[in-house]
Amino acid sequence: MLDFVFHNPTKIIFGKGKISKLGEEIVPYSRRILLVYGEGSIKRNGIYYQVVDILKESGIEYKELSGVKPNPRLDSVREGIKLCREHSLDMVLAVGGGSVIDCAKIIAAGFFYDGDPWDFFTRKAKIEKALPIGAVLTLAATGSEMNGNAVISNDETKAKKGVGSSHLLPKFSILDPLLTCTVPPLQTAAGVADIMSHVFEQYFSANEGAYLQDRIAESVLKTCIHYAPIALKEPENYEARANLMWASTIALNGILSTGKLTDWATHMIEHEVSALYDIAHGVGLAILIPYWMEYVLDEQTVGKFAAYAINVWGVTGNNEWEMAKEGIGKTRAFFKALGLPSRLNEVGIQREDLEIMAEKAVTDEELGRFKKLNRQDVLSILKNAF
Amino acid sequence: MLDFVFHNPTKIIFGKGKISKLGEEIVPYSRRILLVYGEGSIKRNGIYYQVVDILKESGIEYKELSGVKPNPRLDSVREGIKLCREHSLDMVLAVGGGSVIDCAKIIAAGFFYDGDPWDFFTRKAKIEKALPIGAVLTLAATGSEMNGNAVISNDETKAKKGVGSSHLLPKFSILDPLLTCTVPPLQTAAGVADIMSHVFEQYFSANEGAYLQDRIAESVLKTCIHYAPIALKEPENYEARANLMWASTIALNGILSTGKLTDWATHMIEHEVSALYDIAHGVGLAILIPYWMEYVLDEQTVGKFAAYAINVWGVTGNNEWEMAKEGIGKTRAFFKALGLPSRLNEVGIQREDLEIMAEKAVTDEELGRFKKLNRQDVLSILKNAF
Repeated sequence: MLDFVFHNPTKIIFGKGKISKLGEEIVPYSRRILLVYGEGSIKRNGIYYQVVDILKESGIEYKELSGVKPNPRLDSVREGIKLCREHSLDMVLAVGGGSVIDCAKIIAAGFFYDGDPWDFFTRKAKIEKALPIGAVLTLAATGSEMNGNAVISNDETKAKKGVGSSHLLPKFSILDPLLTCTVPPLQTAAGVADIMSHVFEQYFSANEGAYLQDRIAESVLKTCIHYAPIALKEPENYEARANLMWASTIALNGILSTGKLTDWATHMIEHEVSALYDIAHGVGLAILIPYWMEYVLDEQTVGKFAAYAINVWGVTGNNEWEMAKEGIGKTRAFFKALGLPSRLNEVGIQREDLEIMAEKAVTDEELGRFKKLNRQDVLSILKNAF
Repeated sequence: MLDFVFHNPTKIIFGKGKISKLGEEIVPYSRRILLVYGEGSIKRNGIYYQVVDILKESGIEYKELSGVKPNPRLDSVREGIKLCREHSLDMVLAVGGGSVIDCAKIIAAGFFYDGDPWDFFTRKAKIEKALPIGAVLTLAATGSEMNGNAVISNDETKAKKGVGSSHLLPKFSILDPLLTCTVPPLQTAAGVADIMSHVFEQYFSANEGAYLQDRIAESVLKTCIHYAPIALKEPENYEARANLMWASTIALNGILSTGKLTDWATHMIEHEVSALYDIAHGVGLAILIPYWMEYVLDEQTVGKFAAYAINVWGVTGNNEWEMAKEGIGKTRAFFKALGLPSRLNEVGIQREDLEIMAEKAVTDEELGRFKKLNRQDVLSILKNAF
């Protein structure tokens, strides 16, 4: 087990109707907030009206930034920063999924930075400070509700990049599983693929000895495998929605990466796919994960894949290689059974763009730590997944 | 899954030699601290001298409160409060196991309270504020390093009681597994029993639907079962010590109790045993746990015990009752194999005191939620365990 620091002060308020706590959570920080949301689903399902009623009742003034897209754009971030400055807002409240929360985070950090917020992503600038951030989560997927990470897409350069800072940890996140009951099947499934991908990136680690963390990682995977089919069959099954929601948070709140070298190659590859084609992140991951697994399976990694197959999928047998392959096969079949696409060409990707993606994914350094991937490796994975 | 709030801002600094970070963690809070420690083991193994060197180098003045006992006494708390007030100290640093940390916590809270600190435990007073608390952990057991709980013994009334408050969460805890390599076998084993007992109190829950939490609980149990024998055989095995240390923290930092009604009957019973006889908490728990399990096993609870047997011990079979009993048997055999006593009479308890213990354990309300226990039930468990 490697040395680590774990420090996650985000307050989670979890349960039915917990949106009622919103006012009392905001007031210690602010009376003038920027309300950030997406493309209107929170108006259709009524969450928007609940939120603004609470803000009004609590005496909290607000300006709105709406229209934040999945794969949130830099333009929205810039617009949000402008609104905060123009109206002297001093807190950012995200109501939505990970994209909305990520956008809110960079608005909160960009507020204190004179240059362009894209500088945080090119490492030209470091996040030194941020406005307080709050979240009302409406989708179980990214874990952004309890971490300091954000991913933003830049339309001008067709780039999608991530940044992390403890300043971006939300002060609080309200997690009401009922709010996810109206999430459509494909998005529910893509969210589950996203959760599982976060676990994989940390579980398939280059170092040994983080036994406890591996068992907890398997717990999150088993929870996804158990409840995703139930949530698809019975969208209003509270137990399923609650377990998936808490799983999304635990998957990426820092617990699973304690004592570990993590991988993240699949995410880096997927970022290039969805930067060019604007497909849902979870869909891209669901396609790529099994091909990444097959590609990195070798003498060094087979033991870990066999353990994965045994502990997560209940695979039995004597031959490590066979069990490892069976585990990967079950992963692929699971995503397919959830109704997720399994090839890049199914989601409109053109073969001629694969080389550009590979080129952009691997710039200076090789990707991943579980197994290092160069540009040719990445291209092979993309071609296999095509 | 029940509604919950999870909020744990304690910073964990984990790894080899991390005591070197002590100065920089203290300085943001204080330059004048109370250093609290136990009965001298930190002098024998040299940790004490490392700590005071760092304090001096960092320009941190300190006064010492030493001699804090396992089952820490109210007298030590009072003495610590007096020292803080006399010397205008404004932070409390615990160097030791859970007893030392618990003592430090109540000193930190008692500093701001005019009455006697025992009032916190009799619920005559509420903890409204506390000095900042820091910890250097030397024993994997109680989880006090990352929670707001403290248990104190009152010699005058022969009572041992607990209290919890978010004000008691340490600002930071330094967890260096190397510091636990010199812990003697019986204390190592008792620490493991303590960790597992914390999991049991939360795992054997009266409510359903916290699937993820149950899988994580099983992860902590499997970690204890895997590494306790290794730590006993090879006291300097870093991987074993590291996994047990992080398991102790995860077992009681609030994650496992999210969405759950927890039990804690075994702890309430053990508190009365060790209040009268001053035996090690973990030893008392190791004795009582299997008898509690046997006693509460019934038509309602058999399913959960069977799941425990299957998921944690790998028990197989068709009959729920048989599997449940096998799981309980394996628990008992495991504690025995670790060298822990398995009967109260082995640790000097007198039969005539069992009634007093039962009487003190069950005052107004019945104990436990997984299965409610009245005074007669508790007496039966104590007699069975005698």
